[in-house]
Amino acid sequence: MRISELARASGVAVATIKYYLREGLLPPGRSTSATQATYDEGHLQRLRLIRSLVEVGGLPLAKVRAVLAVIDDPGPDPYAAVGDALAALPPYVRDEPPYARATAALEAIGLAHDPGSAAVAQLEAALAGLEAAGRPLDAEAVGRYAEEVAAIARREVASVEPDGSGVHDDPVATVVQDVVLGTVLVEPVILALRRIVHAALFRERHAAGDDGQNPAASR
Amino acid sequence: MRISELARASGVAVATIKYYLREGLLPPGRSTSATQATYDEGHLQRLRLIRSLVEVGGLPLAKVRAVLAVIDDPGPDPYAAVGDALAALPPYVRDEPPYARATAALEAIGLAHDPGSAAVAQLEAALAGLEAAGRPLDAEAVGRYAEEVAAIARREVASVEPDGSGVHDDPVATVVQDVVLGTVLVEPVILALRRIVHAALFRERHAAGDDGQNPAASR
Repeated sequence: MRISELARASGVAVATIKYYLREGLLPPGRSTSATQATYDEGHLQRLRLIRSLVEVGGLPLAKVRAVLAVIDDPGPDPYAAVGDALAALPPYVRDEPPYARATAALEAIGLAHDPGSAAVAQLEAALAGLEAAGRPLDAEAVGRYAEEVAAIARREVASVEPDGSGVHDDPVATVVQDVVLGTVLVEPVILALRRIVHAALFRERHAAGDDGQNPAASR
Repeated sequence: MRISELARASGVAVATIKYYLREGLLPPGRSTSATQATYDEGHLQRLRLIRSLVEVGGLPLAKVRAVLAVIDDPGPDPYAAVGDALAALPPYVRDEPPYARATAALEAIGLAHDPGSAAVAQLEAALAGLEAAGRPLDAEAVGRYAEEVAAIARREVASVEPDGSGVHDDPVATVVQDVVLGTVLVEPVILALRRIVHAALFRERHAAGDDGQNPAASR
């Protein structure tokens, strides 16, 4: 397809596509003349991935580049490749390991983890933030969240592979792309739903008393 | 306490505290001389709130100001005040209502919601992002997440009020501050744990076969 068709199919402006081409985020099309090129389904997929990372994930271009670099050259180890790609996703944490709070909590609750991974660094920053705000979360509280979150994660992983097949037939790059998109795109769904449920519970509580002052009445 | 002691207690640099004072985010201390002022526990609490919003929540100063404005003058309706404060938290969504995808999904699953709220706008953006990436989430899938998330939210709300008392004794401002901090500080914990559990499941799967090519073996 021509660049104008690629723009229509992806919802990305031609100027933006040209920018991605110049920046090397999108591989060049196949030249059909001195001034024209043609693009394929691969370009469309790549463009959708970039837009997800930029618009939903809020990644700066340097981090988009880092994710794409892993997808373009993932190496043989899917676990390492996924870890590298996820490390380029926000939130960006400045602290260096060891991540004492996170590691202590994860060990206490017996959750397997890579102590130097970006996700553990993010947990450390989150726990440090709670502590700094005067609302520390102890290992037991982290454990409750971990159990609830594990229920979500297990279902998600099972649904990716409903019949015990699937991911292992894909090249590593596809796995990385799936995990990156599953992270960037689904996280906002989970957070938005939590806020919506909180609001519903909050409204329920405040509707329970005549004057909104008796939230316990419905219990 | 003096500004240097406030800095030590809060972990915020004196220069940053002075900046917040100039910007009106932090109310002035009580003057003890022409060049000195003294600060109290209220200043420390306010400073902690600002740091949580800036460092953990990633709010720009204009949005911090919006949250503080609600806390300083919440009005009589806690539900409205909480809604106003949460609307100042990221992710910031540009789209205007109606939020067709989100509303349709929430109605299909029977989850009470305010159709014009920021959280519904965020869900809409998230669902639109999934759709644009070629991975739409149908109402049934949203419903599964909503159920799992509701389990977390119900426990959280119950733990705030373990004996049926608590929040209703606090002024509206305290409720708003609690909800804001519970949102900003706990969301990163949930997301970090989801990434950690995914990594653990992923590693388990790839360790299941000798060559990492038989992820279904452990099932």
